[in-house]
Amino acid sequence: MIDILIHNALVLTLEPGAPPLMPGYVAVQGSRIAAVGQAGPDALPAARESLDARGGLVLPGLVNTHCHAPMTWFRGLADDLPLQRWLHDFIFPLERDWLNPDRAYWGALLAAAELIRGGVTTVADGYFYESEVRRAFHHAGLRAVAAQGVVDFPAPGVPNPRDNLKVAGEFVESGKDFEGRITSTVFCHSLYTCGAETLKAAKSLTRTRGLPLFLHLSETRQEVEDIRRQTGLSPVAYLDRLGILDELTVAVHAVWLTQEEQDLLALRGVKVSHCPESNLKLAAGAAPIPDLLARGVTVGLGSDGAASNNNLDLWGEMSLAARLHKVWRHDPTVMSAPQVLALATREGARVLGLEGRTGTLAPGKEADLIVLDLRQPHLTPLFDPYSHLVYAARARDVRDVMVGGRWLLQNGELTTLDWPEIAGQIRAGSRDLAAFCRGLRRP
Amino acid sequence: MIDILIHNALVLTLEPGAPPLMPGYVAVQGSRIAAVGQAGPDALPAARESLDARGGLVLPGLVNTHCHAPMTWFRGLADDLPLQRWLHDFIFPLERDWLNPDRAYWGALLAAAELIRGGVTTVADGYFYESEVRRAFHHAGLRAVAAQGVVDFPAPGVPNPRDNLKVAGEFVESGKDFEGRITSTVFCHSLYTCGAETLKAAKSLTRTRGLPLFLHLSETRQEVEDIRRQTGLSPVAYLDRLGILDELTVAVHAVWLTQEEQDLLALRGVKVSHCPESNLKLAAGAAPIPDLLARGVTVGLGSDGAASNNNLDLWGEMSLAARLHKVWRHDPTVMSAPQVLALATREGARVLGLEGRTGTLAPGKEADLIVLDLRQPHLTPLFDPYSHLVYAARARDVRDVMVGGRWLLQNGELTTLDWPEIAGQIRAGSRDLAAFCRGLRRP
Repeated sequence: MIDILIHNALVLTLEPGAPPLMPGYVAVQGSRIAAVGQAGPDALPAARESLDARGGLVLPGLVNTHCHAPMTWFRGLADDLPLQRWLHDFIFPLERDWLNPDRAYWGALLAAAELIRGGVTTVADGYFYESEVRRAFHHAGLRAVAAQGVVDFPAPGVPNPRDNLKVAGEFVESGKDFEGRITSTVFCHSLYTCGAETLKAAKSLTRTRGLPLFLHLSETRQEVEDIRRQTGLSPVAYLDRLGILDELTVAVHAVWLTQEEQDLLALRGVKVSHCPESNLKLAAGAAPIPDLLARGVTVGLGSDGAASNNNLDLWGEMSLAARLHKVWRHDPTVMSAPQVLALATREGARVLGLEGRTGTLAPGKEADLIVLDLRQPHLTPLFDPYSHLVYAARARDVRDVMVGGRWLLQNGELTTLDWPEIAGQIRAGSRDLAAFCRGLRRP
Repeated sequence: MIDILIHNALVLTLEPGAPPLMPGYVAVQGSRIAAVGQAGPDALPAARESLDARGGLVLPGLVNTHCHAPMTWFRGLADDLPLQRWLHDFIFPLERDWLNPDRAYWGALLAAAELIRGGVTTVADGYFYESEVRRAFHHAGLRAVAAQGVVDFPAPGVPNPRDNLKVAGEFVESGKDFEGRITSTVFCHSLYTCGAETLKAAKSLTRTRGLPLFLHLSETRQEVEDIRRQTGLSPVAYLDRLGILDELTVAVHAVWLTQEEQDLLALRGVKVSHCPESNLKLAAGAAPIPDLLARGVTVGLGSDGAASNNNLDLWGEMSLAARLHKVWRHDPTVMSAPQVLALATREGARVLGLEGRTGTLAPGKEADLIVLDLRQPHLTPLFDPYSHLVYAARARDVRDVMVGGRWLLQNGELTTLDWPEIAGQIRAGSRDLAAFCRGLRRP
């Protein structure tokens, strides 16, 4: 007798080469998948709880490989500005003088609500007050990689930058309490905010524990020029000289890369998080994803924070990733729908080192899955589920979400989060935030 | 006593320079807007029917300036292919041998269901069997500009191309029955499928009646080179020599334009329909929209058909239009959220010559409006409704849709269309279509 049976659906396991299963089922025992298969009503395993998912499409939950959860507070606060004005006139002052641990917690709960409703079951986050983010994700029931942000100047929760790695180390140590569903690690913001010693110390801290180290890499042309001027090296060559590049490094954005840098990332086994909606909105550029994939680099998709996107919706990222590179390369055959869907699931899990646990539907993996409602005009008719998922589906099509055998969304309703309470907290806080910004904007 | 009052909402009229109204109301008398304003519960006009839209955002319905409605049948049938293979191996054979009037009708009803659910109140369509499309839109209650497709080779419903303008003329004449809500006109497919005589005759037919003439213009680099080789002129100069360019011409796509061509389009008052999702998916290119806008050209947004998109969702087009040009120009300040929202509403209405009737909320205009549900994680907090509509909102956030004073969607439910019946027809037909395609793919 298994615990939960989801049946009578179209099931995509996203295991390489596996065909769609119709009528398909997924059997869940405890937190894990016990079986996946194709069977009619008479041949199904017995279960304590059963979901008839008729008209539904079951697939692995999505993996968001880059987020700054508390930045949901700043969604739509300041758009369509030059990057430096946006950072210096809004984001930095807000992070310095307005954000606090309690606000980081509620902002992360808001992010969790959006992520779950959009079918994300695993999220990699990097920000300040990350212990608050971790607490929020734990409460929400999400699988996560939470990474404490590190910079070499005073930061929220770290007034003295000399303490930045001490704080990060304590964050990692305290992460043992969350083991199983949340990995705790470090996010070095970037090469232009972290010096060589900080980068090396962060790598040492994470490498010895087998943890991924995240960093923003070559997001803008300006930052690449600055690093070259300061070090005489390309950003990737500089990181390599510092010994930072290995299979446990996740390079976020990776927009401005030479062929040699791409080769070096591939050689070292560095993983890449691709955030196309953010890259376009901030006019950063188009990352050379087809080239990286051709070199065998493992790539996942990320939303980035809600201040620079302005949503945490991986369906939009999939649609854009599939389209952007076609026009950029003048080639409609690059970034096919099945390939892009893999980036948002299986490959995203590999970016985070979680491929043994999540990213596909296979016996023994954690039961991280979502059910979409296919019976809608924009998903009709259905010839190719991969095409629909990438080119037509949207976050609200997600009806049910399960992480580790536990329902986080049922019939479109959040089961672990109190949405009215979160909305009330955010509404009240946002009035305070608006007042704070009116102060900022005064000459 | 007015007929319908929508109140207690955040109202964006999208009249130039008009501020958001909160708490705002829209009063509807018959098919038209009687009043728009800001007032609390005690100061509202009396009404026969009242909708308390608390937590909602009311704005003009969206205007989709380019669609091929029956192509919903081909959604996801063949993706990620080179353009010529996609056209010659799939689309052309299907249109020639599988499509028929009844299927065009049901495909257009499917399109109407998707359009309404996504907040589109006015759609410009161009296809074959357009009288069937018009019948479907009429049944659905949409405002529409229906344009009979014209090409110089045998087409669905027009086996002899010498009849193409006769059929189009009859279509236009029979359109008088639909006057008020549906404009009937002509869509010359393109310069590479319509010769000079056809283009001139179509322009003559439509110009004398004050109707817009649609045509695909300079979608791909290849087609521009072909026209240059054949005529010695750029596509725009060639059309100008034929006398086709005026305020009643709508150029769809307009991707590959020289500065001189852009100047000439502006000088002649030609309107442009921008279809970014289709342009990217087919790797056509990025249209020079910021340059056209700087020249004063009127631009609207279009979804194109579901075979090349694969959805009819203007929210995705807004998000992409706002982002694409930023990265293309290396400038995060181009295509601001308010400007893009205007393209999808007020400016789209101007593209279609319907600016006196729809596109903004103003007394005397037709009551074409939508209500979005703001009380959702991805639209929280709310600082700037323009930003949310362009960068965060999605089609499913649309809760209610009204066209000409009549509800087409209430609380997310279609009121004029029988969705189970449409879904059943499409499901049955798509099995036949899949069998037909298996025949096609045989070597």
